[in-house]
Amino acid sequence: MTLTLDHVGVVVGDLEEATRRFAVEFGWSPIGSPERLDGLGVRLAYLRHGTDGTLVQFVCPIGPGPLQEHLETHGEGLHHLCFAVEDIRAAATALAFGAEVPIVRGGRGRLACFLPRPTAGIRIELTEASPSFGGFDGEA
Amino acid sequence: MTLTLDHVGVVVGDLEEATRRFAVEFGWSPIGSPERLDGLGVRLAYLRHGTDGTLVQFVCPIGPGPLQEHLETHGEGLHHLCFAVEDIRAAATALAFGAEVPIVRGGRGRLACFLPRPTAGIRIELTEASPSFGGFDGEA
Repeated sequence: MTLTLDHVGVVVGDLEEATRRFAVEFGWSPIGSPERLDGLGVRLAYLRHGTDGTLVQFVCPIGPGPLQEHLETHGEGLHHLCFAVEDIRAAATALAFGAEVPIVRGGRGRLACFLPRPTAGIRIELTEASPSFGGFDGEA
Repeated sequence: MTLTLDHVGVVVGDLEEATRRFAVEFGWSPIGSPERLDGLGVRLAYLRHGTDGTLVQFVCPIGPGPLQEHLETHGEGLHHLCFAVEDIRAAATALAFGAEVPIVRGGRGRLACFLPRPTAGIRIELTEASPSFGGFDGEA
């Protein structure tokens, strides 16, 4: 299994300010409008350099939960790496070593899950790069 | 200024084990052999998926210093994002808002510096993608 890096996840307290700074300082463009996922208690924004390559995802908690606790304890900063997979159930089974992994509908309408343990200290998310759900507004 | 993401920096306590896990679990290949930078007190390993795109850099402290302290305090995990720039002095001046930024010879023989303050909570490194120093063994 060889997994493409989909995005670097960053927890922030102010989605608009984080997006503005990445645009002004590094020239990265936000893609579409921020998403609001009430079930997960987060707002999300994606940015990228140019037209392809690794995305940066800003995650802003909008209610109590693990991400809000993370923000309160650690402040803003790098949070996880997310790899793209073709079949999230197969990949989760292979990489979670038999543990049950909740699969949810995450950003961009994609199925996503977090692996139950870190690799090299990194929280690892998987996202299913399904053609039906893989893109942003107007993209395949 | 639009900056390409060069690598995601990860602090680890065991360079070989981190490299092995990224290879076994995600299929990422180490590039060349680990580097040892005695002046900076670190060993480095780079990995990537396929032949281009964002790299993962594992940084392992080999002596006392900020990275060793970081590892002892926070454990292994995501540490910084590094953007590639064409002229590191110009970029550092523009992005450090006039602050003096020490520029060092970092991994892959490249000039590198850390910006004096984080963006969205992220430590930001710059690396000069000079043709003379930009590649790995045998690469341009």
